[in-house]
Amino acid sequence: MNTFGRVFRVSLFGESHGRGIGVVIDGVRPGLPLSVSDFKTDIHRRAPGAYGTTERREDDIPEILSGVYKGRTTGAPLTILFVNNDTESNDYQLFKDTPRPGHADFTASIKYLDFNDPAGSGHFSGRLTLPIVAAGVVAKKMLACTVQASLVEVGGIGRSHQEEALPDGGIEERDSAWKDILAKAKADGDSLGGVVECVVKDVPAGLGEPFFDSVEALVSHAVFSIPGVRGIEFGDGFKAARMRGSEHNDPFTPTGNGWAKPVKNGAGGVNGGITNGCDLVFRVAFKPTSSIAKRQNTFNFAEGRMTGLEIPGRHDVCFALRTPPIVEAMAAIVLADLSLLQ
Amino acid sequence: MNTFGRVFRVSLFGESHGRGIGVVIDGVRPGLPLSVSDFKTDIHRRAPGAYGTTERREDDIPEILSGVYKGRTTGAPLTILFVNNDTESNDYQLFKDTPRPGHADFTASIKYLDFNDPAGSGHFSGRLTLPIVAAGVVAKKMLACTVQASLVEVGGIGRSHQEEALPDGGIEERDSAWKDILAKAKADGDSLGGVVECVVKDVPAGLGEPFFDSVEALVSHAVFSIPGVRGIEFGDGFKAARMRGSEHNDPFTPTGNGWAKPVKNGAGGVNGGITNGCDLVFRVAFKPTSSIAKRQNTFNFAEGRMTGLEIPGRHDVCFALRTPPIVEAMAAIVLADLSLLQ
Amino acid sequence: MNTFGRVFRVSLFGESHGRGIGVVIDGVRPGLPLSVSDFKTDIHRRAPGAYGTTERREDDIPEILSGVYKGRTTGAPLTILFVNNDTESNDYQLFKDTPRPGHADFTASIKYLDFNDPAGSGHFSGRLTLPIVAAGVVAKKMLACTVQASLVEVGGIGRSHQEEALPDGGIEERDSAWKDILAKAKADGDSLGGVVECVVKDVPAGLGEPFFDSVEALVSHAVFSIPGVRGIEFGDGFKAARMRGSEHNDPFTPTGNGWAKPVKNGAGGVNGGITNGCDLVFRVAFKPTSSIAKRQNTFNFAEGRMTGLEIPGRHDVCFALRTPPIVEAMAAIVLADLSLLQ
Amino acid sequence: MNTFGRVFRVSLFGESHGRGIGVVIDGVRPGLPLSVSDFKTDIHRRAPGAYGTTERREDDIPEILSGVYKGRTTGAPLTILFVNNDTESNDYQLFKDTPRPGHADFTASIKYLDFNDPAGSGHFSGRLTLPIVAAGVVAKKMLACTVQASLVEVGGIGRSHQEEALPDGGIEERDSAWKDILAKAKADGDSLGGVVECVVKDVPAGLGEPFFDSVEALVSHAVFSIPGVRGIEFGDGFKAARMRGSEHNDPFTPTGNGWAKPVKNGAGGVNGGITNGCDLVFRVAFKPTSSIAKRQNTFNFAEGRMTGLEIPGRHDVCFALRTPPIVEAMAAIVLADLSLLQ
Repeated sequence: MNTFGRVFRVSLFGESHGRGIGVVIDGVRPGLPLSVSDFKTDIHRRAPGAYGTTERREDDIPEILSGVYKGRTTGAPLTILFVNNDTESNDYQLFKDTPRPGHADFTASIKYLDFNDPAGSGHFSGRLTLPIVAAGVVAKKMLACTVQASLVEVGGIGRSHQEEALPDGGIEERDSAWKDILAKAKADGDSLGGVVECVVKDVPAGLGEPFFDSVEALVSHAVFSIPGVRGIEFGDGFKAARMRGSEHNDPFTPTGNGWAKPVKNGAGGVNGGITNGCDLVFRVAFKPTSSIAKRQNTFNFAEGRMTGLEIPGRHDVCFALRTPPIVEAMAAIVLADLSLLQ
Repeated sequence: MNTFGRVFRVSLFGESHGRGIGVVIDGVRPGLPLSVSDFKTDIHRRAPGAYGTTERREDDIPEILSGVYKGRTTGAPLTILFVNNDTESNDYQLFKDTPRPGHADFTASIKYLDFNDPAGSGHFSGRLTLPIVAAGVVAKKMLACTVQASLVEVGGIGRSHQEEALPDGGIEERDSAWKDILAKAKADGDSLGGVVECVVKDVPAGLGEPFFDSVEALVSHAVFSIPGVRGIEFGDGFKAARMRGSEHNDPFTPTGNGWAKPVKNGAGGVNGGITNGCDLVFRVAFKPTSSIAKRQNTFNFAEGRMTGLEIPGRHDVCFALRTPPIVEAMAAIVLADLSLLQ
Repeated sequence: MNTFGRVFRVSLFGESHGRGIGVVIDGVRPGLPLSVSDFKTDIHRRAPGAYGTTERREDDIPEILSGVYKGRTTGAPLTILFVNNDTESNDYQLFKDTPRPGHADFTASIKYLDFNDPAGSGHFSGRLTLPIVAAGVVAKKMLACTVQASLVEVGGIGRSHQEEALPDGGIEERDSAWKDILAKAKADGDSLGGVVECVVKDVPAGLGEPFFDSVEALVSHAVFSIPGVRGIEFGDGFKAARMRGSEHNDPFTPTGNGWAKPVKNGAGGVNGGITNGCDLVFRVAFKPTSSIAKRQNTFNFAEGRMTGLEIPGRHDVCFALRTPPIVEAMAAIVLADLSLLQ
Repeated sequence: MNTFGRVFRVSLFGESHGRGIGVVIDGVRPGLPLSVSDFKTDIHRRAPGAYGTTERREDDIPEILSGVYKGRTTGAPLTILFVNNDTESNDYQLFKDTPRPGHADFTASIKYLDFNDPAGSGHFSGRLTLPIVAAGVVAKKMLACTVQASLVEVGGIGRSHQEEALPDGGIEERDSAWKDILAKAKADGDSLGGVVECVVKDVPAGLGEPFFDSVEALVSHAVFSIPGVRGIEFGDGFKAARMRGSEHNDPFTPTGNGWAKPVKNGAGGVNGGITNGCDLVFRVAFKPTSSIAKRQNTFNFAEGRMTGLEIPGRHDVCFALRTPPIVEAMAAIVLADLSLLQ
């Protein structure tokens, strides 16, 4: 099922080293101004280059194949293509025989009977999050909400004032605890995980459904489609399981004009699956980058014995650094769909 | 969208105090032996009565309205109905004016323009998890896997040898830390949350898809449809975000016969969205029961001012105690669907 | 897939001689007045009893199990159940061994591995159109359009002034060509087919989509789900294939106020899959009743040889007489869904 | 909803004069040999050039953007793009003001608030059937059935021995009744309709469902997505409505080996929505080409008065001549999906 959504629907395609990757978006509102430059900021935020990410360059420029006429969306399916420049097929047979720990080499072989494109992880590549970010840009244009995700934890160290996330998804390159542990992990040929928090402001109350399309259900469905996610929590999250009812409950409190809202927002903006008018707040746990420079021991299925494996190339020390615009995109895609269903 | 699933599809209906609640299940394999007694165990595990749950009695006996002929499933849609005995319509106007903190009273009014049935939370009631448990029983019959969920944390206290969860969803009633904090919370007119862990053994490798129907995406979609869930994590979960790659990575290790599997299972049984042959492992955080005996302050929308609210009736001190069969049901529903898509 | 629709979604269940048959409807607008009496007219129009239909009595009274509170729809899933009174399980083994010509006995056995409920055709029964009619009643309440279907042909004889269809789905019982051929077919132990035309007035322009959810695509999908349909055509239909472009084309013609509409309406109200503001017009061909009194020769699969077959019971001479409210229901279900997607 | 199918799912995109048109196909079986040359035959059959079609040249070569690796399908989404060569944006404002009779100019403006791309009918163009034909080629590869459609009627004249349809979708260019009426219609600046029959041989018994995904429901859904279809009928079709039950009923008759099948096949291969092992047979009515050379009178919405309209360019005298591979594609797409659901 390469498609997500009921009315605002994104259909993903492509392999990392094939001709191209992209997305077809159905249900776009006609008349939205849209041009290639609109994608620049979020694509840049996802791109490598910042401290703690790989130095590999990607110059990804979207091509709008359909759905835009004279600078405005037509309402017909909108297709965005990213042509792959790096299509040389290196020898990826190694990873078929000796699947990389933490990667999908093994499961892809099982599912696709070994016919899957192995180059750069094929359709499983993190590169597929690029068209997701592009779809997010379109979704954001359909929303009156502000969707903002940022890193709140790197390698177990929470954000402090020094570690304000930068708009480009990187971290400020002055002396910081995050910079230190990233440098240390890199020196060790190792990698780190992280936690991203997403806050959506000005969400209208009444979006979502009790069963089965609660806001949390749809957001988590979308977010767990991002490679490398290990957990998601809304509002007080796992901490709520350690609270008492009197502490977690969130009495409606006057906001003026005879109206009231919860104020602690431990529910993360959702009651009974439906937005309550508070900010939508959730956090996503990303595992450490699976590809590490360090030599690992794993199994060679062709030879039937343990072997050492060294993964060539340059990799993100912490790919979570690049994920805030992807998390935002997923939230925006869900909210655009729910808004159309309203 | 009261339906979940692509081939094995469950459609939920009903209100807490209406005529009845139930589920229609499409895509059931023909020929499965099925009778009312098959539902008994899981319904009992979800029922109140155990220590820490309400003493209110529920004698819920499923009626199979369709899809079974001479004791076997026919392959046509299977309908299970639970007639509601408690259909007296008390005055729930209070909760329309003064929405209970933590409940869906407010969001339901917004979404359904005040036409929602408010009695016992209507369609938002935790009672709707009863037909979900019933659908889980059918789903489990279609699987060769063993699906087992149990409480691992109550009010922030982890499971010890003393606190082995009982098969009926309760906890052993001897001296235990869990019993103590439940008693204390009850005495305070307060409530507790909990964490449930689900382990699925003997999952075949190859279930799920990279985008958008990864196993985690589908399981989390289903699980967040259970009222009161605040978070979900797979394998190492949020802890993975604090690990290094060399620590979280899980090298394939020989299992004999020239085959190999990851052994630490920090991925919780899934790589690239697809089952890898290890146990599927995830944990779910439940908030504390929203309905507490203690008086709360909240807003009266009819009168436009803060007011005290006392919620009548008997409630679970910790409803998480009753959720393991619900979590199992959701996992089984997802796996039954993925198995048919295989 | 027992479900149809994207937002206004009907899920059907039940077998002819099981506990009951029914439908769950999701996406109903909250606040619609709805009571059991609303279903009376259309259920009566579908019921047998009129000239040319079986004399078997059916007293079908819907039970609303969920989705209505204090006489109004709640917005939660609406469930309508018809309890079956005739649940005695006669010996239907005969039709498993010797499948009735024109029925689904054979294909049901193949698909459901012989576990299907054979009594009264089980889930394949024409009786399942009863909850469809009920869903149509709810759908009509959501529409500003007028949906009206009527018989235009019986046994190859078109409607004349004498044969005005009656509101109850029967035909006027005075001297008429239709009455004559029905009487003759009955006397011969045989049956007749018919054609039903459906006209929807006051359809708003702009419903439907070019690919793949054109109005014709959705209406035909729904209509071919009625047992016994052999064909459907919109506007000029098959006749259009025999016309010249200059004859079939339908120039916009002034309607006053500077606006214009096609006037011949050979497109049946749809251009490019989207309603154009004219009446939606389509015709449906129903085969003759498969169950005839006359002895037939067919194959006995148990004995591996040809055999004579006599089908017991009383049957409609022309079941098409009972179908207008079913055809209307399908049109209304599609239009209710498209209206919500607008 | 630009997507059709449950497991084998096609998602269409593109406008006639935009950057390109194409299709993303999900659910393709991994390991199918597939190359650009596989599409040649069906694309050629759909292409203009044959007698009675426009002389406009189209050299459409598919680009496979994803889903194929080393000449075989990978199982990941397969994307086929046709780059448009004719992207010059002529002045189509005329058709916005003065919508062409029989076209979607008017309904597209209503639905898409005038933001639709009008050039060459935009997303409504018959050109969109090109990626459908491409998807059909992939679908056929997944089937063991033989899908064969051909013209059986042109301008009301049935096929005779002289008018054998040619494999390239054209008609034999010797003296024939079809050639004569095509020549006459062309000379008159007019157009003709036609009827296409599709026969699928070797369909396995047991595909389809009683409600709502009967084979006829799905095939008609897909077929009515082809621009210009006015009707569809299965087996005896509308003629069945004029037959008696004893005549239309189709007794099972021995085929040897103790097995039996219906022989007249008036049901077109389907009973109760499910294939019965006979050939699947259906006929599709296509209207005459809407664009005719002859001057037409229609309404100018900008000026609020009737006006004469001349449609420039060269057009098919009878576009039905080009549709057999499109009809085959739709049948194959449905059957590929149903086969995967089996």
